[in-house]
Amino acid sequence: MDPAADPIDDPSDASVSLGPLPATGAWQPGDPVGDRRFQTFATDHPLVLEGGGRLSDVTVAYETWGELDAAASNAVLVCHALTGDSHAAGPQGDAHPTAGWWDDMVGPGRAIDTDRYFVVCCNVLGGCQGTTGPASVDPGTGRPYGSQFPVVSIRDMVRTQRLVARRLGITRWLAVVGGSMGGMQALEWGVMHPERVRALVPIATASEASPWQIGYSLMGRRSVTLDPAFRGGDYYDAAPGDGPAAGLAAARIVAQITYRADLEYEERFGRESMDRIDHFSLDHRFEVERYLDYQGDKLVRRFDANSYLVLNKAMDLHDLGRRRGGTARALGRIHVPTLNVSISSDTLYPPHQQQRVHERLTADGVDSRYLMIDSPHGHDGFLLEAEALTEPIADFLDEVAKSDA
Amino acid sequence: MDPAADPIDDPSDASVSLGPLPATGAWQPGDPVGDRRFQTFATDHPLVLEGGGRLSDVTVAYETWGELDAAASNAVLVCHALTGDSHAAGPQGDAHPTAGWWDDMVGPGRAIDTDRYFVVCCNVLGGCQGTTGPASVDPGTGRPYGSQFPVVSIRDMVRTQRLVARRLGITRWLAVVGGSMGGMQALEWGVMHPERVRALVPIATASEASPWQIGYSLMGRRSVTLDPAFRGGDYYDAAPGDGPAAGLAAARIVAQITYRADLEYEERFGRESMDRIDHFSLDHRFEVERYLDYQGDKLVRRFDANSYLVLNKAMDLHDLGRRRGGTARALGRIHVPTLNVSISSDTLYPPHQQQRVHERLTADGVDSRYLMIDSPHGHDGFLLEAEALTEPIADFLDEVAKSDA
Repeated sequence: MDPAADPIDDPSDASVSLGPLPATGAWQPGDPVGDRRFQTFATDHPLVLEGGGRLSDVTVAYETWGELDAAASNAVLVCHALTGDSHAAGPQGDAHPTAGWWDDMVGPGRAIDTDRYFVVCCNVLGGCQGTTGPASVDPGTGRPYGSQFPVVSIRDMVRTQRLVARRLGITRWLAVVGGSMGGMQALEWGVMHPERVRALVPIATASEASPWQIGYSLMGRRSVTLDPAFRGGDYYDAAPGDGPAAGLAAARIVAQITYRADLEYEERFGRESMDRIDHFSLDHRFEVERYLDYQGDKLVRRFDANSYLVLNKAMDLHDLGRRRGGTARALGRIHVPTLNVSISSDTLYPPHQQQRVHERLTADGVDSRYLMIDSPHGHDGFLLEAEALTEPIADFLDEVAKSDA
Repeated sequence: MDPAADPIDDPSDASVSLGPLPATGAWQPGDPVGDRRFQTFATDHPLVLEGGGRLSDVTVAYETWGELDAAASNAVLVCHALTGDSHAAGPQGDAHPTAGWWDDMVGPGRAIDTDRYFVVCCNVLGGCQGTTGPASVDPGTGRPYGSQFPVVSIRDMVRTQRLVARRLGITRWLAVVGGSMGGMQALEWGVMHPERVRALVPIATASEASPWQIGYSLMGRRSVTLDPAFRGGDYYDAAPGDGPAAGLAAARIVAQITYRADLEYEERFGRESMDRIDHFSLDHRFEVERYLDYQGDKLVRRFDANSYLVLNKAMDLHDLGRRRGGTARALGRIHVPTLNVSISSDTLYPPHQQQRVHERLTADGVDSRYLMIDSPHGHDGFLLEAEALTEPIADFLDEVAKSDA
């Protein structure tokens, strides 16, 4: 899910020193704003979350590309995955720790053509790149929420996106598009607001988190909480280098394995080792280990450990059917054209999950399509297969745009 | 790889309290011996390991079943996997923390018929159930090896098994059989001692560890070392409850996910939750999480964190071709009938790894067979699919036994 984890991210980079570690990689007020815009809600009354928690003064950081047309009919919402943020497109810089995670997909003449569509991407609620999350200051206490931040749900994320849409004057999205956790948001948009979307593009996602996914999520959370520097979630006043970087980096390791695929790793790394340490030492690392460590080291510089826990739990709680009489009934609320996309080698969100959604929608008479991208990249294929994704998504959006709104 | 992790191990057990945690789950001299027999080697000179480390007074704990015939022609070596031990068959008891890990496979009238064959199973070098490992006392210091225990290799394990065979009067095994790390040992036997085996049955294993497997291994090791109670490996004098149980349990979680399969978990656990804690809490656990935690809690009572690191590294270092001019040349030394077995749903040791070995052996003119067990259980299928494994393995051993030795 990490845009920086692309196939040309050479493992030899693993020798690069990344500098001292912050206690959190969260964006903080006062940091460069870059392309972010901000909208603050619920200043006079708290936002009541699906789980019962309450948040005041919720701020959503978002970015936009292109121009909204006079009829507000050309708006596309792009939703990010677990460790993504609002910077779906654009260069890396002081304000944006990575280049746009979907830079190949969002831009002039690209799959989501910013010459034609007004594209919006919001950092999710609970995130750490400008939207209210655990690293934000609780207005009630004047200190970061930390361990007191409530668990949020995908539905809560959609609610904050709905508020942004209202402020932008968008009553109906041309399409909601996203992969992984972003696809969960796309599906929830179709269920929560069937009249406010014209089309959905859920990619490498599911109608509910499976126990397989929940197991890996648990492993990620355990890695974070095992780190004594996590301090139960209240680590924001830790000195540089004394935050829960090791735990968050370990969580990233297991995630990064599951985001890719066996044969891809074999072709890329084999059993290479450039480590000068003797093989017969526990400290020795094969190249795949250096690569995984490097991915962890990078993440901790742009992410927050508490956000990782909260968003990871939000994904586990994802279940379209919750309090709606089950998955089939929930999916029965979706009635717009839907392009379901799978990645062939995805073992974390296996194609059968997307196929089930497609079959249910089809059985309900919805104009549902199913696209399998043949890719060696596993789950991260949704980030890396821009070339294969471009034409089908561009054609689909074009078809929707030309249909009667 | 854990026999206790069988499909009827009901997650409701997860509510059972397992009592106070030892600093290590290793078997210690003075503990009940049970069915173990012991053989000590290298009392007058150190055993020099493949990686250059040295060990004195190496003890191997092993068990046997059946009777060795007069010609010593009916001996079968069974090799255990990462967290297994010499107790391949027999009941659980004071001396044996689990029932035999292959109890359905080894016994009178079973696949490896103890009425007919003399079966031997050795706890591996570096292990913790009676054979010399990191929890053993270093005769040079009078204290447990801990962090000073050297990295061992699969080849070193085979060397100690070779010494046991010599003491038992076995010059040639009828067959060497094992799954996962046990299969690595079986293949090494064929390469290291082609004249000392008549047949091999490597199951759910590989000619070398893949980067995918190494990645998951890294995650297991990181989980252990993240635990501050690990103390760099020197935790044996910790008070009960103050050993690296949390880290080892976390390592077990990621392992246990990879040992099974997506659809099996879905069928077994779905999104069930019997937790009384509210879903919208980071402390809430779905049933799959309680199951995984329970597997971790069980392992720490019978395993040692340092052994986990050492054996896990031995698996990563497994490479038939090392210092032998590559895999193909190494496999070229195997010339005995070989039954390669895959588990269809195994994503950790995917069938293509066993198929490659089979294809190489076949190309070399070896009587190699390939069997795919259709199973939903993933990698653990080698432990759980006794019914499907029995006839093919029994027939294969029978054929070998009846052939000219």
